[in-house]
Amino acid sequence: MEKMKPRTLSGFMELLPQKQAQMEHMMQTLRETYELYGFYPLDTPVLEASEVLLAKGGGETEKQIYRFQKGDTDLSMRFDLTVPLAKYVALHYGQLTFPFRRYQIGKVYRGERAQRGRFREFYQADIDIIGDGQLDIINEAEIPSIIYKTFSKMGLNRFKIRINNRKVLNGFFEMLGLSERSGDVMRTIDKLEKIGADKVRQILLDDCGASESQADEIIKFITISGGTQGILDALKAYEGKNETLDLGISELTTVAKYMEQFGVPASHFEIDLTIARGLDYYTGTVYETTMLDHPEIGSICSGGRYDNLAEYYTDKQLPGVGISIGLTRLFFVLEDKNYLAETASPADVMILPMTDDVGAAIELATRLRDNGVRAQLNCEKKKFKSKITYADKLSIPYVVFMGEDEIKNNIVALKELATGEQTNTGFDEALERIKTGLAKNQNQKVILDK
Amino acid sequence: MEKMKPRTLSGFMELLPQKQAQMEHMMQTLRETYELYGFYPLDTPVLEASEVLLAKGGGETEKQIYRFQKGDTDLSMRFDLTVPLAKYVALHYGQLTFPFRRYQIGKVYRGERAQRGRFREFYQADIDIIGDGQLDIINEAEIPSIIYKTFSKMGLNRFKIRINNRKVLNGFFEMLGLSERSGDVMRTIDKLEKIGADKVRQILLDDCGASESQADEIIKFITISGGTQGILDALKAYEGKNETLDLGISELTTVAKYMEQFGVPASHFEIDLTIARGLDYYTGTVYETTMLDHPEIGSICSGGRYDNLAEYYTDKQLPGVGISIGLTRLFFVLEDKNYLAETASPADVMILPMTDDVGAAIELATRLRDNGVRAQLNCEKKKFKSKITYADKLSIPYVVFMGEDEIKNNIVALKELATGEQTNTGFDEALERIKTGLAKNQNQKVILDK
Repeated sequence: MEKMKPRTLSGFMELLPQKQAQMEHMMQTLRETYELYGFYPLDTPVLEASEVLLAKGGGETEKQIYRFQKGDTDLSMRFDLTVPLAKYVALHYGQLTFPFRRYQIGKVYRGERAQRGRFREFYQADIDIIGDGQLDIINEAEIPSIIYKTFSKMGLNRFKIRINNRKVLNGFFEMLGLSERSGDVMRTIDKLEKIGADKVRQILLDDCGASESQADEIIKFITISGGTQGILDALKAYEGKNETLDLGISELTTVAKYMEQFGVPASHFEIDLTIARGLDYYTGTVYETTMLDHPEIGSICSGGRYDNLAEYYTDKQLPGVGISIGLTRLFFVLEDKNYLAETASPADVMILPMTDDVGAAIELATRLRDNGVRAQLNCEKKKFKSKITYADKLSIPYVVFMGEDEIKNNIVALKELATGEQTNTGFDEALERIKTGLAKNQNQKVILDK
Repeated sequence: MEKMKPRTLSGFMELLPQKQAQMEHMMQTLRETYELYGFYPLDTPVLEASEVLLAKGGGETEKQIYRFQKGDTDLSMRFDLTVPLAKYVALHYGQLTFPFRRYQIGKVYRGERAQRGRFREFYQADIDIIGDGQLDIINEAEIPSIIYKTFSKMGLNRFKIRINNRKVLNGFFEMLGLSERSGDVMRTIDKLEKIGADKVRQILLDDCGASESQADEIIKFITISGGTQGILDALKAYEGKNETLDLGISELTTVAKYMEQFGVPASHFEIDLTIARGLDYYTGTVYETTMLDHPEIGSICSGGRYDNLAEYYTDKQLPGVGISIGLTRLFFVLEDKNYLAETASPADVMILPMTDDVGAAIELATRLRDNGVRAQLNCEKKKFKSKITYADKLSIPYVVFMGEDEIKNNIVALKELATGEQTNTGFDEALERIKTGLAKNQNQKVILDK
């Protein structure tokens, strides 16, 4: 038969088993963490009617969308999880209870130009809290604690959650009389870290229509430093001049105030007045998360507060706050920068029967599984040595031999592959040894960070 | 602004939050169970190059495929998880270790005519064990134990795993000289339970070219009864007449022999000589799983042994054994037949701050979460009563009030909503109470069966 050469499309991540096990481990950490904060899991279709998915229309994304006709229906594959959430909440509004907290980990599709580290199919991991008409500021303060817990549990240590408040920026620009150019100004100040204050000032003058004094005011404002408390103190000087700015400062103060109680260490949190996160959508607190040793990869978890989730579908005012992790890209980066643990094993124990009747070995496997131990039977007709190599390749830490003697004496021969140590013990002691060994290994996280 | 009416495409399942939580719970049970048996998680793209995905070509499925052009590429959405697995193993052959055990839970797409209980986007949950050149029969014996453990853990009790062996059927037909019509004969005998022996006999005579004596032999064979041991005993009478049949009987005997050691109760397992599972693909043990009280919905978990996973992609001989659960359809059926538990809560505790400064309440939430308790803070500006209603609607079992007195005395006021019982205790005792209560509830499975 003529063979078709198998291939996977470029821009589509397909991992080898051990890497996939690490990715699954990260997803499981996300699910567990999000559930600790009381979020429902949510799932929506990958395919939606194009007119529904593209109700907002236009924009950069539209060209990238996988859109096609099937029968009479114009279909599109989702390009993010936010539009499907808006549709979901508008459609099922009467059956939901608010605030509605949901997480969704799912694949989204964008036909971008393929290049290293860019994906056309990628996982997003989103959480959002949606209010009906209103949503308390405490929800905005809670988000950094979820970010902190999520990454810490994965094993990442050296990262920082940076927040700002769009009302602070909008109010400040209003105060300066620069409201009409606020989009341009925000895009410009966002570059502070990259290009420095002098260049930012020049662009403000040349391209944003700012006067010398306006540019100076902006530079002075966005370079306010001094840590969380220092920045909040400095912002007090701006109070009483603009209502939006006052509200923004008050919100920023509230969010910062509760960080400690939310379990976010001061080392992992900062106010950064240059963060804007796009243009119109966000209206309150905004978040970015950066890896201290790799600022060049940009934010690994971003989001913010918005006032109107579903305005294209409903008249209901649905404010919310949410964050998103680009999981596929994050995984790529972590692998690329050598952050991933070396091994991920699909089993804790491999059982090797040494007799023709494998009943005793099977019974042992069943008992181990009943006790929560991941066990593989290896009954293949292969040489002993090749089976040990198999266990080695899969990083399975323990091997149990079941021969005539073991069966007769009702014991198991347990070998720890890393040390080569072999012990003959009863089932209970073997189970104890395996569990103790595994408990030690369980401290090993997927991500290895300083 | 004119609003776009939100809708979800027909044939696409979109669940309300509590139902989705149950679906997620089922998926988590699948992941945990599959991992106990040493399977790697696997993920492959939803989109593949059409020529690769459709290498096998033809068939009923091809018309249903979501296929489209994007730029220069002819793309198709996967319609099952088996073809992507074949592609994966052929493509990454050199980097895999065999036997290769993988599970995959993912969405697949078939543009079927929309009707109640039929889905165009649905989850399949597959496991497969792939050998390189050979694969031991014990792997076939292990599969029923995975099926049993999976459904039991979900809470299903009244089901039966039915197995047969294709070599038994093929060998028997060979022996009768009916090899050329074996496809027709298998399709006919598969109907035994539905239409009865007389009608099967008539179709064998009229449509399958069987003689009277051949038809009688077939009816006699497929109506062999007497439980597992009875059937195996009766099959002994057929030994020594056909090589394939002999091998099939031997394999069936081996698989049945180890069921007890694999932890499958006799009540949940039977040999059924009428099971054929399609035509050419399967070559050894085949599996079906039926709900005792709803045989009309057909098999909820099926699969079998095959000799050649990836023949369209590679010359390598890759035998395997696998099963598949149509998870979306199963969930639909379970809901439809009232098998699902009434509630699924997104949180264990709701914390209600009763003071302006909510620091103490936040600290409590953080401590509870650090102890693995799923906690929601409710700081919304709403009436007390509406917050209790909120907890009720979400089936959150505990509410904690944090007022001046509680903060001053360093205690928490813990209320169990089901009983209305309220206690004022220190944190440790409250935690203890919550955990004890939750442990009781954890016995509640998603599926409620007799």
